[in-house]
Amino acid sequence: MSSLGACPAPLAHDEKIVLAHGGGGRLSAQLFASVFLPAFDNPVLARLEDQAIVTLGGKRLAVTTDSFVVKPLFFPGGDIGRLAVCGTVNDLVVGGARPRFLTASFVLEEGLLVEDLRRVVRSMKEACAEARVTIVAGDTKVVDRGKGDGIYITTTGIGEVSEERASLSCGSAKPGDAVLVSGPIGDHGISILSVREGLELETALVSDVGMLGGLVEALLERTSGVRCMRDPTRGGVASALHEIAKASRVSMLVDESKLPVRDEVRAACELFGLDPLYVANEGKLVAIVAPDQAEAALSALRAHPLGRDASIIGTVTGAEPNDPPLRATTSSGGERIVPLLAGEQLPRIC
Amino acid sequence: MSSLGACPAPLAHDEKIVLAHGGGGRLSAQLFASVFLPAFDNPVLARLEDQAIVTLGGKRLAVTTDSFVVKPLFFPGGDIGRLAVCGTVNDLVVGGARPRFLTASFVLEEGLLVEDLRRVVRSMKEACAEARVTIVAGDTKVVDRGKGDGIYITTTGIGEVSEERASLSCGSAKPGDAVLVSGPIGDHGISILSVREGLELETALVSDVGMLGGLVEALLERTSGVRCMRDPTRGGVASALHEIAKASRVSMLVDESKLPVRDEVRAACELFGLDPLYVANEGKLVAIVAPDQAEAALSALRAHPLGRDASIIGTVTGAEPNDPPLRATTSSGGERIVPLLAGEQLPRIC
Repeated sequence: MSSLGACPAPLAHDEKIVLAHGGGGRLSAQLFASVFLPAFDNPVLARLEDQAIVTLGGKRLAVTTDSFVVKPLFFPGGDIGRLAVCGTVNDLVVGGARPRFLTASFVLEEGLLVEDLRRVVRSMKEACAEARVTIVAGDTKVVDRGKGDGIYITTTGIGEVSEERASLSCGSAKPGDAVLVSGPIGDHGISILSVREGLELETALVSDVGMLGGLVEALLERTSGVRCMRDPTRGGVASALHEIAKASRVSMLVDESKLPVRDEVRAACELFGLDPLYVANEGKLVAIVAPDQAEAALSALRAHPLGRDASIIGTVTGAEPNDPPLRATTSSGGERIVPLLAGEQLPRIC
Repeated sequence: MSSLGACPAPLAHDEKIVLAHGGGGRLSAQLFASVFLPAFDNPVLARLEDQAIVTLGGKRLAVTTDSFVVKPLFFPGGDIGRLAVCGTVNDLVVGGARPRFLTASFVLEEGLLVEDLRRVVRSMKEACAEARVTIVAGDTKVVDRGKGDGIYITTTGIGEVSEERASLSCGSAKPGDAVLVSGPIGDHGISILSVREGLELETALVSDVGMLGGLVEALLERTSGVRCMRDPTRGGVASALHEIAKASRVSMLVDESKLPVRDEVRAACELFGLDPLYVANEGKLVAIVAPDQAEAALSALRAHPLGRDASIIGTVTGAEPNDPPLRATTSSGGERIVPLLAGEQLPRIC
C-alpha cells in the first residue's frame, strides 16, 4: 500500500485520471480517499501503513502489494524486476515483518523481446534469493501493442510479524522524536532521470534499488526506541514524512544541512529544478526514533554497510491544527514549508 | 496461477511476445516453462495448481494472483472489477480454500474517467461482500495515455485450507473418474465477443462472471469423491481438462452431446468458427469425481442454483505416452482429438 492519508475534497464527476494520481502525493491521496477508501473501508486498509497486518488462524501476517511501471525497464543499477521484488519486500520489512512469500503477475506488451523478459525474470530470481523469499504464484497477461509499455509487474508480499514488533506504526511518532535517514537521498530518481534525459553525469550514479532487510534488523536489534520506519520511494523523503506526520498528528522539522545528498544528485536537481527531498529512493530507510535512542539508532545504522552515511535529519514537533506537517531549515538559517506535492516530479519512477 | 504445465521447447533468442503468450494455451505453457519456471523453480510453483499452498507458522495458506486486462471494461453481466474479485476468489475456492483477504493493485491510463474507475471499484466492493473477503492492501499507478487501456487490475487472494481438503489436487485424477461441469459453457467469452463485434444476440446473453464458493461448498459437503476442481476461464473447459490430464498423467474423453451450451452461444460459435470447449467461462466449475460418487456429485451440483444445468460430460481414461490428453465423441458418433490451442481464441477475455 503506497497510498496516502485521507483528503476530503471529492473528485468532480467528469474528472479524468492524470499522471499525478499515481505519484504518491496529494492527488494520490485524494483519489484514495474519494474512490478507494469509501468502497473498501475497513480497519486494516484505513491504517494506511505500507503493509497490512491481518490475523489468520491466530497467526499475524503482513501483506502488501505494488504495481511497477517504471520507465525505462532497465536503468543504471537495476531493472523493473529487481525493483518489483525490492519494493514489495521493503514494504514488509519497514513494518517489522519477516518476508516469506511473493506472488508476481506480469502484463506484457505484444512485441516485447522474450530476451528482455528473461533478463527481468533473472533479476527477480537474484533479488528473491537475496531477500530469502519464494515466488509461489504468478500470472501472465499480454495486451495489444500500444496498450502497454513492455512489462508491468505487480508483486504481492506476505510476511510474518512477531508480537514484539506489532507496535511499529506510522501513527506512533511523538514530539521530540528524532528523524533519521539511512543514506544519500535521490539516487534512484536521478539515475532514472539521467537515462531518460541522456545526462552524462560526471560519476556513474546508479539507483540505490536494494533490500532493506539487513539494515532494519541491525537497527531493531540495537535499539528499542524505533517508533516506525518507511522506505521513501515515490514522492521521496518529504512524502514519507508527510504520511507519518499525518498519521501521528505531529509536525516535523528537517534540517537541510543534515540531508545526505550526493554531489551529482544535487547538481542534477539544480539543473532540473528538483528538490532532493521529493526525489525517489529505492533502498533507503526513514526511521522515527525516541529521543534517548537517537544516537544508538544512528550508530546501529552506520555500522551497517547500507547505512554508513546515515544522518539524523530532523525532529518531530507538536502540531496545532493549522501547522504545516513538514518544514525545513534552510542553509541561510531560515525556515520553509515543505508541502505535499500534487504528484511525483518524475512520473513512472517505480 | 493460471499457467500451464511444462513444455520443453525453448524460445528463440529474438522471439517476441505475441497475444497468444497470454492466452492460457500452448504458448503460455511454453513461456512459463522456458522463462518463469527455470528462474522461480520451487515445489509450490511447480505444482501448477490454480492456487499455491504454503505453510506459515504451522498454518496452511492458499495464495493466488491474477492480472485482469479484459476489453471492454464493462460488458453484459459484469465488469473488470467484478471479474478481478471473482477470478481470484474462484482460484482459491476450487482448491478447497476459504478466501479471506484480497489485495488489489491498479494500473490506470491517463485520461480515464474517474467515474468509470468509481463504477469498477463499487463493483469490486459488492463482489467482496458476496465472497466475504476483505481488501486489505492496494496500490495505484498511472501510465501515460497510450501505454495502458483504461484499467488493469491485479488481485491477489489469501485463504485458509483445512487439513481434510489439502488432498484436492489436479494431479489426482484417475482412470474411470467422471468429468463434471456445473452449467452452460462459453457464456463469458461470447458475451464479451458480442460487445466487441456489436452482435445482436436474440436473447440477452450475459457473462456468467460469478462466485463459485457456495457451489463448491455444496459439492464438497455432499460428496467425498471429489479429486480436484478448476474454474475453466481463458482457454475454456478444454484447456482446464488439458491441465488436469497433464498433471495426472491421464487422458480424458468428453461426450459432445452432454456439453451444456446455450443456443445463442452455439449460434455465435458457429458464426465465428469457435469451439465452445475453448470459450472462456467465469462462473463455471469443472470437477473430477471418483466413479462411485459421480451421481451424488451431479445431484449436489444440481441442487444449487448455480449448478442446475450441471452435467457429467466425460470420463478419465488411462494414458499411454503418445495418447492425446483430450478427445471428444462427436454428434456423428465419431471421435476427434481436442488439442491444446496455441493461445486464446478471444484475446484479453479476462
